[in-house]
Order: sequence, then structure tokens, then C-alpha cells
Amino acid sequence: MIVNMSSDATEEQIQHVIDRIKECGYQPHLIRGAERAVIGAVGKSDHHRNQLEALRAAPGVEEIIPIAHPFKLVSRQMRPERTMVEVRGVRIGGGDVVVMAGPCSVESREQLLQTARGVKAAGAHMLRGGAYKPRTSPYDFQGLGVEALQILKEAREETGLPVVTEVMSTEEIETVSEYADMLQVGARNMQNFPLLRRLATTPRPILLKRSPSATIKEWLLAAEYLVAGGNPNVVLCERGIKTFETEMRNTLDLAGVALAKELSHLPVVVDPSHATGRRSLVPAAARAAVAIGADGLLIEVHPCPERALSDGPQSLDLGGFAELMRGLAEPLLRFSTPNGRS
Amino acid sequence: MIVNMSSDATEEQIQHVIDRIKECGYQPHLIRGAERAVIGAVGKSDHHRNQLEALRAAPGVEEIIPIAHPFKLVSRQMRPERTMVEVRGVRIGGGDVVVMAGPCSVESREQLLQTARGVKAAGAHMLRGGAYKPRTSPYDFQGLGVEALQILKEAREETGLPVVTEVMSTEEIETVSEYADMLQVGARNMQNFPLLRRLATTPRPILLKRSPSATIKEWLLAAEYLVAGGNPNVVLCERGIKTFETEMRNTLDLAGVALAKELSHLPVVVDPSHATGRRSLVPAAARAAVAIGADGLLIEVHPCPERALSDGPQSLDLGGFAELMRGLAEPLLRFSTPNGRS
Amino acid sequence: MIVNMSSDATEEQIQHVIDRIKECGYQPHLIRGAERAVIGAVGKSDHHRNQLEALRAAPGVEEIIPIAHPFKLVSRQMRPERTMVEVRGVRIGGGDVVVMAGPCSVESREQLLQTARGVKAAGAHMLRGGAYKPRTSPYDFQGLGVEALQILKEAREETGLPVVTEVMSTEEIETVSEYADMLQVGARNMQNFPLLRRLATTPRPILLKRSPSATIKEWLLAAEYLVAGGNPNVVLCERGIKTFETEMRNTLDLAGVALAKELSHLPVVVDPSHATGRRSLVPAAARAAVAIGADGLLIEVHPCPERALSDGPQSLDLGGFAELMRGLAEPLLRFSTPNGRS
Amino acid sequence: MIVNMSSDATEEQIQHVIDRIKECGYQPHLIRGAERAVIGAVGKSDHHRNQLEALRAAPGVEEIIPIAHPFKLVSRQMRPERTMVEVRGVRIGGGDVVVMAGPCSVESREQLLQTARGVKAAGAHMLRGGAYKPRTSPYDFQGLGVEALQILKEAREETGLPVVTEVMSTEEIETVSEYADMLQVGARNMQNFPLLRRLATTPRPILLKRSPSATIKEWLLAAEYLVAGGNPNVVLCERGIKTFETEMRNTLDLAGVALAKELSHLPVVVDPSHATGRRSLVPAAARAAVAIGADGLLIEVHPCPERALSDGPQSLDLGGFAELMRGLAEPLLRFSTPNGRS
Repeated sequence: MIVNMSSDATEEQIQHVIDRIKECGYQPHLIRGAERAVIGAVGKSDHHRNQLEALRAAPGVEEIIPIAHPFKLVSRQMRPERTMVEVRGVRIGGGDVVVMAGPCSVESREQLLQTARGVKAAGAHMLRGGAYKPRTSPYDFQGLGVEALQILKEAREETGLPVVTEVMSTEEIETVSEYADMLQVGARNMQNFPLLRRLATTPRPILLKRSPSATIKEWLLAAEYLVAGGNPNVVLCERGIKTFETEMRNTLDLAGVALAKELSHLPVVVDPSHATGRRSLVPAAARAAVAIGADGLLIEVHPCPERALSDGPQSLDLGGFAELMRGLAEPLLRFSTPNGRS
Repeated sequence: MIVNMSSDATEEQIQHVIDRIKECGYQPHLIRGAERAVIGAVGKSDHHRNQLEALRAAPGVEEIIPIAHPFKLVSRQMRPERTMVEVRGVRIGGGDVVVMAGPCSVESREQLLQTARGVKAAGAHMLRGGAYKPRTSPYDFQGLGVEALQILKEAREETGLPVVTEVMSTEEIETVSEYADMLQVGARNMQNFPLLRRLATTPRPILLKRSPSATIKEWLLAAEYLVAGGNPNVVLCERGIKTFETEMRNTLDLAGVALAKELSHLPVVVDPSHATGRRSLVPAAARAAVAIGADGLLIEVHPCPERALSDGPQSLDLGGFAELMRGLAEPLLRFSTPNGRS
Repeated sequence: MIVNMSSDATEEQIQHVIDRIKECGYQPHLIRGAERAVIGAVGKSDHHRNQLEALRAAPGVEEIIPIAHPFKLVSRQMRPERTMVEVRGVRIGGGDVVVMAGPCSVESREQLLQTARGVKAAGAHMLRGGAYKPRTSPYDFQGLGVEALQILKEAREETGLPVVTEVMSTEEIETVSEYADMLQVGARNMQNFPLLRRLATTPRPILLKRSPSATIKEWLLAAEYLVAGGNPNVVLCERGIKTFETEMRNTLDLAGVALAKELSHLPVVVDPSHATGRRSLVPAAARAAVAIGADGLLIEVHPCPERALSDGPQSLDLGGFAELMRGLAEPLLRFSTPNGRS
Repeated sequence: MIVNMSSDATEEQIQHVIDRIKECGYQPHLIRGAERAVIGAVGKSDHHRNQLEALRAAPGVEEIIPIAHPFKLVSRQMRPERTMVEVRGVRIGGGDVVVMAGPCSVESREQLLQTARGVKAAGAHMLRGGAYKPRTSPYDFQGLGVEALQILKEAREETGLPVVTEVMSTEEIETVSEYADMLQVGARNMQNFPLLRRLATTPRPILLKRSPSATIKEWLLAAEYLVAGGNPNVVLCERGIKTFETEMRNTLDLAGVALAKELSHLPVVVDPSHATGRRSLVPAAARAAVAIGADGLLIEVHPCPERALSDGPQSLDLGGFAELMRGLAEPLLRFSTPNGRS
């Protein structure tokens, strides 16, 4: 921690900060610059970091600058080798790109089974589908609940695809865990700490979506809640952040995926469907996600998007999904030829 | 709802959209422009609005444009007169500016009682203080829980100030309701829909903080969950939104307060402490909030901010709070004199 | 400047950074923490600050943290007393709130004269009006140019109101200076450095609008170009920043006004018309701007907003402007009564 | 254009809007819904679009919703086939990925020639390098000007690489055009309309960087200024947008690249160096840009980044650039093997 004193700080104020740093169990290092003093606080224990931060309120202090990363267990510093998360035999972070596909919401048995068979045939590795839906408006379709979970289970039994589905509250964890192989924390719940603390104690792997307003540090700190609480099987999922641009539903932060993998050993997957909100952009965005190093993809697929009860505009139909899968197998420079323009 | 067809949409595609609009129970109105067709969908029932929105995925459709506001019960269209929320005799939205003051977290009996007495003496109308704290890092102080609730109750008994405190999960509602007069939904939980649905059934009034990434429409839709679920006693709280500016903790959206009051009949209060994150800016921001029409203020006060376990940098000490209260009583144009510069 | 070494930096890397710091003419101060080393660089001269920043690219360096503010002449550290800018006898920053009012664009002699007389009668101190208009689309009305300048001059002669108008390029400076009393740098030109450098040499005072994507530091650095280049008469103007919220044209950053005045001695005025883009919100936002300490207001007024060639939706008509002026004279707590709700 | 009347609009107000629509030369189409009236305005001419937009200020009007895209000549609607821009024999938008590489600033003859030879050897197609530098602070290195242009020309003569460099003001256009093959409009100048209007009349192709705060529509409208003014040879360049995330210099909007190519026929290239501001992320981001369909890349390369006078932290050295080029030739799914994890 570095304490940046304001340029008109008095000697008493500097001394007071030095005393407080010692009181908190850290060693102070004073550097006197041409215009101002800067005081480094060095120490092993993190117990009193909050107290150091409160020094921002002490007279003469302009700024407190943290030096160490706030996350620990999820950092590559702590664990340089990459984590691999296994979901019923599917390995995320093991080198292959894992594709999880399915509808936004489970709407009916027919809709889900048709989708599950289709995505399986096209090469998907896991099945996604919402049973409990967080919806911005109370008047929108809120999901089929347990009925949807039963349908998901049936689809898994038929196709063999492991199932990932969202859990919205601590009370749903037990039920959802009976049916699903991986529990998804939705973007709006990324900082629902009571939920994270309970999920930290389940044996199921977790898919942690990035909140559209979370910095990468906040995202990794949310993962830290899970890992510190006892669940090391966490997969991060980038699904777009909120910016001034409104042509797309969100702004897909692909460089953020590369950065998250630089800072953390956890696998990172990408959801280009929610990120763009536009069906036409999903295949190209999926290719880009793979190119930047994503460990997997989350793709919304619906047999008839224009009749979907949620997120139709961003859903691919089965033909579109098969095409996306073929696109992933094409070379990076697919248009180029040796002698110039193709 | 307006369906904007793309300029190369075929007659079949236009007809298909018209048919689907009828199928959903709405009446289609086709307008043929110079370049493209636009189709209005008119209808009373909202039941199939989602189905109309899914038409975005139909071939030839470029855009779906909603016309009506998505929120209903909280809108001034539904209820032109303003709502007044009463909390143990304190009326929010009744014309007077209601000031809720206290520490970010309850840290000890002494800290809270000293604060409560101080803010009462300076003119505060309600006491705030966190018992359960949502913290970005799992390693930060997480609140004293029930012990804090007991201290808050004691402070209310001594000072008569009604208490508002945050509730983070459905499981805490019952306990917190025993002690607190008003339940706060924190910014990170604004779209925690299971929590909102349960709070809709409590008799306690709710203070609904705006998520730092919520549009005003999303904020009002969160309030709609509460009101539609049965709890009409909702007070909105603006506490800053997340933007590219990093000098302050958040960007205080004061014009958004005026807009929220234009769109909704619910009272709106402002938290300039969290919004700015800088003690020095809080009194001026509080004055501006009142000037733009806020129904109240939420102010963080700590007897010794530099020793606070959370949010010290944005907390006023008791002297600073008293000064803020005096500032609210000054005229708007406080520096001006009749003959030019003072 | 603080160099934050990564936790796995080698001794050679640390030594290399120390050597480079000395080479750049600064003194290195090494602090060894539990996990990593941090090196402070202390020095008087700023000549090689860029070279220090490039050290971010040296092996083993994680981050370079600047300590001093990047702006100098505009900072309160350099000049604690506030600057007052005089425009033909009107003093901005002298304690009184200065109101500059007029249409977005000068559209005709009649339109401007009618507006000038109206705003003068209602109490405005200066006249605004665009002659050269920066428009997002090449197909929109681009302003009347010199003709508009002549009309503005005529209005000044009749009403005595000093004129402020925008200058978009270095080539226009001479002409515009003949007619206008104050030159406005538009939000899109805040970082048009050739323009700033030339304006630094004119005798006219400058109204420097904040870019909707500028941090407060970037805004003050743009002002630094003007002051360092020789023009101390700079008035800053906040006009809203770009955020995810789309209900309003921009997000008015009023706390940013208070912060700009804390960091700089320059006067700061507020343009609530562009900031909100909604006529109905302008009067309340103007009151809030005054309450937070703005030195003046820029208000768009048009005799018939629904026929304006630009920015009609955010323009007040003459009656609305007169009401805004009356609202500024009302007390801060205008709804309150001594014994509770009014 | 759709006029959305408020739900309490009177018959007179509706009639007034209908009359004004006719007066502006458009045909009104009234649709009466359950709650409100909506009026479509249909017409060929765009001359009075601004007047229609001003109707937002008419009584009873809640919103004006544009239907048609505001840009025309740059849209794919106008010209479905893709544009190819030729720069001294290098074809951008012709199918091959064009790589433009070089230092942020030309600092010396040695620095530039060494870089030019290195990037040529590694496979770059064009040379970039700044002669006139827009810098946030007036105290930062501002470029070598004409001397830099001469060095760039010498490098082109030796290596054969066409040169792209930034032009900051109308006064520099003539001089820069003598030396450079392609003129770059910097991100801060994207809406410098006098500059765009003059560049529209030069014979040189233009590289138009997206402003970090521009929506895709605003970006395309800036290009429209160039094309409508007579210069069809425009290449768009995405270089990151400004968001709340601060770990990276900007947020690279790769999905926006795909969208820009969907909306416009102009080629789009990507600058991952400015976008991320972090050397370590540039190669992966470059791969992702190619995967999403970018027509080219702009890469900052410096022989010794830690001694660069600007943008060192995001510059690759020559070895790093060669590695980036090799990475572009690798398959998309480079880690996968047929039988599971590698």
C-alpha cells in the first residue's frame, strides 16, 4: 500500500500516518519527493488492509494506492499452472474448446429435446437451458422451474450431454443440484455474496458469469469467494459489458478474456449470444473468442428463434448452429490465398 | 410495438410478420415508406409482448421498437399523484427533505450510539447502519450481523430515530425485520429477483438502491417487482453509476433523479457518500440533490472516519455532518450579492 | 512515480529499473515488501517523465503509478486563489452566477433578436448562439457562418449582452474574434490540440467544453494547453458525459463540477441543456448546478423550439427561460415548512 | 420517422403534429393504440428531417423515433459489394489481411529505419509512424513534424512499404500528403468536421480511427462526411472504446468490427495496441481481430519499447512482432487434437 500525501501536508500529518501504519502492524517507508511525501506500508498480514485503506480519510492524505492484487487463490501468482474443471467427463480448460449450447429458457419438452439432439449432432459438448430465469420485468416469462429441470435431465439421459443451468437463490441450490451437472451464477448475481458463499460448499462445478458492470478485478474477487469458500471448480464466463454503445446488447470484452487468463489460472469461456444480442454476429464472435484463447463457448440455440419466449433475436436455429461449428474448424486466415486477394 | 422491416424485406416476409402479429392477438398497421415498410402492432393485452419481441428474429425484420413504458404500477401515468412512504412517523416524499445518516457498518455499540446521538443532534431524521455488508472481497469486514441489529435497535430506543439497514438475502428478511423499520436493497441486489419477490410480501417499507449499471428503466422495473408483488412502500435511492470517470467512486446521476420523479410517483432519495466516494464533495452534492428535487438524503457519518472498517474515505465526521445540515438551510444563491460579486 | 515490480521480478530486473531511473535524472528509492519490490522515483524535473513511463515496458515491471497531478498551471496547488474571467464587463467566477442563454444555432435575424431581447429581459448576462455548427451528420444544418456572426453582433449592440460562440477550426479564429467576446471550444474539439494551441495566443477568453468522454484530468490538461500557451482566461463548461444510460442525451456530472473546482482555480459553468437533452429537466438541473457551486449556466433558448433547426427538444422557449430564472431565486429548500410537511 | 405521442396527448396536439408533418413535406400515418397514438411520417426527401426531429419539442410528443439509418453512401444498402481501398499497390479489403506496423512516434532516423526493416522482414505490408502527435498533456513529446515525414519517406524508399501517418489539422494536409501514402484521422479527430471536409477533397486514401466514445453510427457518419465530400477511399479503424474497465487502456470492441462490416461496405482494420495498451495482449487480440473478419491490423512496434517516447507499454519489439505474424498463420483451433485434450 502506498499513501500519497497531498503537497501541503504538514509534518504532523505525515507523522500521524506513519504512526497509524505501525499501529496496523505494517512497516512505514517514507520517501520525500520534490513536491510531496509518499509513504509505503510493507507487511505480511492482510488482516488490517481495510484499516490502512481508511487512512484515506486522515488529514493530509490525498490517495491510497494498493500495490498487491486483491485476489489471491484465483491468481496465477498463487498457482501458475492452469486449472481444468471437469463436468461429467467434459474437461473445460484442458486445451479443447468446449461448446455449451441450448435455448435461453426451457419452454417445453419438445423444444428442448429437439434442440439437444440438434446441438449434439452438430458437435456440442454440453447442454444449456434456463429453468429459473432472472427477467428485468416482472411481466416477462420467468421459466418453468422444476419442470424444466426434469426435461433437462431427460435430455441429458438421451444425448449424454452434461447440463448447465442457472441457480438464482440459495433456496434453489439443492433442487437444481439434483438435476444439473454444473451450476451457473447469472450476470446479475455475480456479486450476490450469500449465494456465492453457499455455492462454495456444493460439490458441483460453477459457471460464474461476469456482471455487465464488473471490472475484471471484481469478477476475479467474486470467483475468490467461491474458491476461498471451498469450491475450486470455477469456470469464468464473459458475456459482454455495459457501455455507451447501444447497437448491440452489450460490448463483448474479448481482450478481457485474454487478460483474465493472464491474471488467473481458472478457465474462461465466452457467451457471444448475450454479448452481442444479434444472431448475425454470433458465429464471427465465436471464432474470435476461440482465437483469443477462450476455453469454451456458450451459444443460445432455439428450434424457432422467432417464437422463443426469451432472447429470440440472439438465438441461432439448428442450421445456424451447425454452421457456427463448421466455422470453428476453418483456418484463421480463411479468405487469404498465397498470391494476394482471393 | 413497431416492427421496422429491413429495406430489402420481401412481400412474403412482410406478410409473415403481419400474420404473426395477428396470431399474438394484436392488430397490425402497415405503413409503406419510400425505402422500407414499418408495421405497428396495436393491442390491449400485454400477455404476448415477449412473443412480439421475438419477431426480431423473423426474416426481414431489422428492429423491434417498443412504444409503451415497460413499467406500469410505478409510473405516473398510472398514478399521477406522488406516493408518500411513512417510516415510523417519518414521511418520505411528503415535501420535507428526510435525512438518513449513520455509519456504513455498525462496528461497535460505542461507535453507533455516539453517531446516533450526534446525527440526531444535528437534525437527522433517520439512522442508517450496516449489519450485513456486501463486500467485493471475501477478505474484507463482512458486518456484525445480529449483534449490529441489536445495537441499532438500542440506538433507536434512545434517540427515537427510525432505522434503515440492508438485507442481503431472503433468509435474513425475518430477522432484520424484527429490528429495522425500513429494509434496504443494496445496489448489487437491485436485480436479485427472488429477494425482491420476497420483500414484496413484507409489511416493511423498502429503500431500493439503484444498481451502478442500471438504466432508469431497469431501476423502475425493479421497483415494479416490489409494487406488483404487493408492497407499495418503495423509496428509490440514487447512489451513483459506473462510468469511465475514475476520480470519483461513481458518477452521481442527479438529472436521473429528476427524470425518475418525472416518470414515477415514488419518492427518490440520494446517497452522495457512495456516489462520490470523497468526503470533501458530499456536502455540495447533498445541496445539489435537494435543489434538483430529491426527497431525502443518505449520508455516511462516522465518529472517526480514518478508523472506519469500511468506507472511511467517504464518511463525514460528526462536525462535518452538522456543517452539511447547516448548508442545506442556506439559500440557493448563497454567494451572490445584489450589486455584483461579493 | 512509483514502479510496481511484479512478484516474480528478478534482482537483475530490479537493478535495471533502478539504473534507468538514475539515467533519467531521478533518484530511486527501493522498498522491498513481503511479496514484491516497489521503487519510487523522486526528482524535480519533468523533462523525462515520459521516459519513466516507458519503463512499463521493461521486463519485470507490472505497473507505473504516477503520483503528481499531470496538470500544473491550472491546479489550485499552483494558484490557491480562484481565477475570475472577465468578458466585456461580465465577471465569471466572481461569486455571482452568470447565465449565458440563446439558441443552439443562429437561424435568422428575427429568431436571434427575439431571443436576445427575451433572455435579456429575463435576466441573462450573456448571449450564446452557434454560427459554425459541428453536426454528427453531414446532411444536417451546418450553421449560417459569417452571416450568423453579424446577427450576433447586432444583438449585442442592441442588448448589451456579450456574445459567446463556437469556433471549430484555426482558420475561423480571426473572423469569429472580430464579432464575438468569448470563444467556445466545443465538446468534440476539447482535444483538438492545434486549435487549442492557436487559441492560447488570442486575447479572447475561452469557454472550454468538456468532451463527453473526457475524464476530469483530461479536461484540465486541455485547459493546461490554453494556459501554458499564454491565455489565462479559461472557463470550463461541463455538458454531460457519455454513459450507458440512454434516456437522457448525456449524464450530467455535477459532482465532477465540484471536483474540478477542488482541483483547479478556473471557473466552471454548466450546460444542462446539452447534458440532459430534455427541456423538462433543464430548470431543475440548473438549480442543482448552482447548488453545487457552478459559476454560471449555459442555457439553450429558442422562440419556438419545435421549429428549431437543431436541438429543439432541449431548448426552452422564452417563457420557460423566464421561469428557470425565477427558480434560481427561490430558496434551496423550497417545499419545506418549519413544522413538517407542507 | 415515428412520432410517439404521450398517453395524455390531446386531439389538438395530435392534429398539430399531423399538420406539421405535412408542412415538412411528409405524409402522416396515424395509428391509435390502446393507450396512445403513434404517427408515422413517410417521405422521400431528407431535407426536412431536422424539422421533423424538432417536433420532439411540440406539446404532447413523448419521443421521436428515427427509422432509416442516418448514413447513406457508406451503407451496404446503397452499395452491397465491398469496397477495396488501394494504397500504393496494397489492397485493403481485398480478402488478405493487411498489416501496418511501426512505432507510435518517429523518434529518430535510426529508430525508424531499424523498425521498418524489421517489420518488412517479418511480413508487414505497410509502415506506420507518427510525425505530428496529439498528446493529452502539453508537456509530452509532440512529434518531430516534417523531419519525421522525411524519415518515413526514406524508409518507404528503402523498404517499399507504403506509409500511413496522422494528420491533425487542415494546415498540415498538404505537407503530409507530399510524404505519406495514406492519411490517418486520429481517434480524437473523428468528429473534427472541418478536417474531414478538407480530407474529403484530397486524392489520398484515409484511415479513419473510431473515437473512443463514438457509437458505430457516429463512426459511420464521420466516414459519410469523407465519402459525401468526394473521397471514397476510406478505411475504418477500431482502436478501443472508453468504458468503466480500467485494467486495459480501452475496451476493444471486436463485435463492433463485425457489425460495422454488416452495416457498411468500407474495409475495417483493428489496432490492438492502442485498444489494450498492454503488450502481452496484442498478439492474441490480433488473432481475434482476424478471426472476426478484420481486413487488416495496425500494430505498434519499437526496437526498444522501454525507451519509447510514447506508448512504450503497448509496443512490441521486433521479435515480438515477428512472433505475432507467425501466430496469424497458425490454425484457429491451435491447441486441439482429434482425441480430446492435447
